[in-house]
Amino acid sequence: MNKLLQGLRSNPLLWMLAAVPAVFLGEHFAPEAHTTLFVLAVLAIVPLAALLSHATESVAAKTGDAVGGLLNATLGNLTELVIAITALRAGMFDLVKASIAGAIVTNSLFMLGMAFLLGGLKYRVQEYNAGTARLQAGMLFLAAVALVVPSAIGGSERPEVAAIVQQLSIGLAVLLLVAYVLGLVFSLKTHKDLFASAGESGHGEDERLWPVKVAVVMLAVITVLVALVSEIFVESVQYAAVSFGMTPAFVGFIVVALVGAAAEMTSAFAAARKNRLDLSVGIALGSSSQIAMFVAPVLVLLSLFIAPSPMDLQFWTGAVVMVMFSTLTVLFITNTGRSAWFIGVMLLVVYTIFAMTLYLLPPANLGPA
Amino acid sequence: MNKLLQGLRSNPLLWMLAAVPAVFLGEHFAPEAHTTLFVLAVLAIVPLAALLSHATESVAAKTGDAVGGLLNATLGNLTELVIAITALRAGMFDLVKASIAGAIVTNSLFMLGMAFLLGGLKYRVQEYNAGTARLQAGMLFLAAVALVVPSAIGGSERPEVAAIVQQLSIGLAVLLLVAYVLGLVFSLKTHKDLFASAGESGHGEDERLWPVKVAVVMLAVITVLVALVSEIFVESVQYAAVSFGMTPAFVGFIVVALVGAAAEMTSAFAAARKNRLDLSVGIALGSSSQIAMFVAPVLVLLSLFIAPSPMDLQFWTGAVVMVMFSTLTVLFITNTGRSAWFIGVMLLVVYTIFAMTLYLLPPANLGPA
Amino acid sequence: MNKLLQGLRSNPLLWMLAAVPAVFLGEHFAPEAHTTLFVLAVLAIVPLAALLSHATESVAAKTGDAVGGLLNATLGNLTELVIAITALRAGMFDLVKASIAGAIVTNSLFMLGMAFLLGGLKYRVQEYNAGTARLQAGMLFLAAVALVVPSAIGGSERPEVAAIVQQLSIGLAVLLLVAYVLGLVFSLKTHKDLFASAGESGHGEDERLWPVKVAVVMLAVITVLVALVSEIFVESVQYAAVSFGMTPAFVGFIVVALVGAAAEMTSAFAAARKNRLDLSVGIALGSSSQIAMFVAPVLVLLSLFIAPSPMDLQFWTGAVVMVMFSTLTVLFITNTGRSAWFIGVMLLVVYTIFAMTLYLLPPANLGPA
Repeated sequence: MNKLLQGLRSNPLLWMLAAVPAVFLGEHFAPEAHTTLFVLAVLAIVPLAALLSHATESVAAKTGDAVGGLLNATLGNLTELVIAITALRAGMFDLVKASIAGAIVTNSLFMLGMAFLLGGLKYRVQEYNAGTARLQAGMLFLAAVALVVPSAIGGSERPEVAAIVQQLSIGLAVLLLVAYVLGLVFSLKTHKDLFASAGESGHGEDERLWPVKVAVVMLAVITVLVALVSEIFVESVQYAAVSFGMTPAFVGFIVVALVGAAAEMTSAFAAARKNRLDLSVGIALGSSSQIAMFVAPVLVLLSLFIAPSPMDLQFWTGAVVMVMFSTLTVLFITNTGRSAWFIGVMLLVVYTIFAMTLYLLPPANLGPA
Repeated sequence: MNKLLQGLRSNPLLWMLAAVPAVFLGEHFAPEAHTTLFVLAVLAIVPLAALLSHATESVAAKTGDAVGGLLNATLGNLTELVIAITALRAGMFDLVKASIAGAIVTNSLFMLGMAFLLGGLKYRVQEYNAGTARLQAGMLFLAAVALVVPSAIGGSERPEVAAIVQQLSIGLAVLLLVAYVLGLVFSLKTHKDLFASAGESGHGEDERLWPVKVAVVMLAVITVLVALVSEIFVESVQYAAVSFGMTPAFVGFIVVALVGAAAEMTSAFAAARKNRLDLSVGIALGSSSQIAMFVAPVLVLLSLFIAPSPMDLQFWTGAVVMVMFSTLTVLFITNTGRSAWFIGVMLLVVYTIFAMTLYLLPPANLGPA
Repeated sequence: MNKLLQGLRSNPLLWMLAAVPAVFLGEHFAPEAHTTLFVLAVLAIVPLAALLSHATESVAAKTGDAVGGLLNATLGNLTELVIAITALRAGMFDLVKASIAGAIVTNSLFMLGMAFLLGGLKYRVQEYNAGTARLQAGMLFLAAVALVVPSAIGGSERPEVAAIVQQLSIGLAVLLLVAYVLGLVFSLKTHKDLFASAGESGHGEDERLWPVKVAVVMLAVITVLVALVSEIFVESVQYAAVSFGMTPAFVGFIVVALVGAAAEMTSAFAAARKNRLDLSVGIALGSSSQIAMFVAPVLVLLSLFIAPSPMDLQFWTGAVVMVMFSTLTVLFITNTGRSAWFIGVMLLVVYTIFAMTLYLLPPANLGPA
């Protein structure tokens, strides 16, 4: 607890934690002040994300970067999962799908690109374990194939197809989950050593790190807080979007994905600035592949029980194209296991192309069904 | 001949050779018992495939893995060629095209993936010559481009296009054949040494191997037997499919391709279990690229003489998408020249996505024209 | 000047320079003799290209291959820029777009492939800096994404979309230009050393090289001459195409691109034959990526001022597919930094598939608007 207070003193950002109670009070007393709630929610998520990053680093320092990265991605994605489950219950399938595709694209292009850029501005060339990156890029590729092939093979115009697509989606969801679990067995058990850090980053004993037990408890508590604030964020974001002049497509794909991954981004960027690029790549790509191979299938299966009707895995063409190109970009970029600032710029340019297009060209079928 | 009998004694599988005369007798005396003939044909192909594998290994042991792989792929693909020619004569172009695309997809995903998985369950990490794999993946890519581009550039709705597509198909067929021959000159003559085995697999002198002369004769005889049985298999498979509840798309793409490549699969899997992954990769990718660059063009040109009307190279969108994704998967997977069990799982997952989709979603235009 | 005359004596090709005044005289006295003017223009471009190649080599010998390659590509692309500006003024947007896409495809497939083939026929295996190639392939990929995504996401059938696409095109043009400039900063300034030549090609002091000052002046003068002749070429090529029986699609994509890049090709092929493959790759891919990231965006922005109406970045599907496949081919091929003759053949086969298809299947919407 001493160390926590010490952190508060050394990091002025943490005073923004005051926004956490503020947003809960606001929700209670002025639930209609959507734009205010939206701003408060964003203000609250930023310091929580910073704390989460610190807690994760404390654990990661003890467990090695690979497990630390996985852990970080898992907890970070709880946010996305909670958001999506809320929308799923309300039957807002288009929002769920936009946030899934948006999270994949944002994590693999924006988070990875910004980590490469921030790290590259400090270090001339950075190295990371290409094997880990390739494994996760491969998982992304599997998920992308599972999204593309059904829509390309079946002609959705035929009447009998809708029921079949639902059946196929359940089959693919189970298949992706099995592959995800086998991937964990591979990377954490049978071939663990292949996924060790590339850079011999002698990270020493950072005195500001929390003890593991404190860190684990903090991880859990802060994640719950992030989740609660995120719900208020989602409720208010659609209204705020209208008053800020953004399209629903842009909100689902870009804004929800950016705020939802704020916690992981803080960790990934901090690690890149400390030349621990394996942690950054692990967070960014681990998070992407986990959403594609774990969150998305779980949502399809959950929809059978908690949603008004079952959700399928068919995405609109634009989302499939963006997921496909993100995957190809990552496959190409991570080939060498080396990074420099311009590699980050390239990833960010691809992301900006998507964001620009979504901002100007709202797809016909997005927004609450 | 002694060695052959010795093999019979040591390998109980070979007793299944009794199914070979049985299927010919069945065809003669009960040509309408399609389901029985189908089962007998499958039972006959399996031991023949095993013998073929043994004969090929005997030759390969003397000639080096690259030539052995090529040899294997050539003879193994005779099966596919005979099947396709039979269908071509009957004007069943959709079946021919489905079996071509299915063979490419099955060999590059299922055969390679299963070889990686089976080898990886025995050996922690296996190495193979990435150069050979890249060359064959590159050939696959050429063929995939030749399939995609015409259908993407020309709008098939225009009436004058059909005649032009036929002309273009003949041009592309000749081009692919020229590239195929140049590829053989490159890999077997001018740059032969680049395609040597990666693993110094001191395979010693396996005492059960046949002498080269016996092996070559056996290769020829067994290949003919496989071809004859395959014909009965094809005649019966469509009827058997109906009684087993499979769609024509699934039969053409998956069942015909799996049984047609059974011989090569036995060899590829056996080699992987013996840590001779170069032979496995050579068989799987060599077979895929040979079907794409040699069998398919030959069939287009043959159709001018033996078919009721000329066959073109336009495939339905789903087939093109699957061939394209198989190629991308192989390009990505074979980049490093290293394998472990999960690499095999990834290939098999992509294959299962295709198989599931085909099983549930029959494309509109497949089955005999 | 002595050295120049010496060159004239040693290289009989240079007598073709007589075609330069001939084509200007022809334009003045017989502006309607299109087919004659076309032949004269081609005859004039060839020796000018050879001189340009010699001047560039003289400069490159002093500046290192990376800068030399950039320089070459810049000056070589002046031709394409002048051609495109002429067409832009006349509002011939389809011709401008065809020549942009055609130049990207021709430079990255034909020029690179022919350089690999010509070099490979002389040297068994050639090496080049894979880093440079990957950077330029990455730039091509960015540009390809900028072409594909807008057309895939927006449904062009909706009436309000046209205005939005124009707005988006301007945004993407600015984005690509920014990325292009950052790429130059990266490759020429902050990480210059990563892009040094791979082969320690001790090119010695070729006594036939011009002094740098002479070479720079000659570069400028010859480029202007090439530009002037190219204009006559463009005016006459459409008429000549009709009398030779070529479609407008084939002319825009293949003929204009081949003649427009003749100067760079002479340099790239000569460098490959001298085992300076870095220079060849730099010219071919530098030229492609420069057209995609610099020439195309500049034309979009220029169209706001000098064209009858603004030009957007939407290309017809066939062009997008070909640019995309060229990019994937280059990404795959340049992965290793090694080349042999068959690599060149593979690139040329992909190019021939495109050329065949364009020759036989003219797309509906090409040719002057």
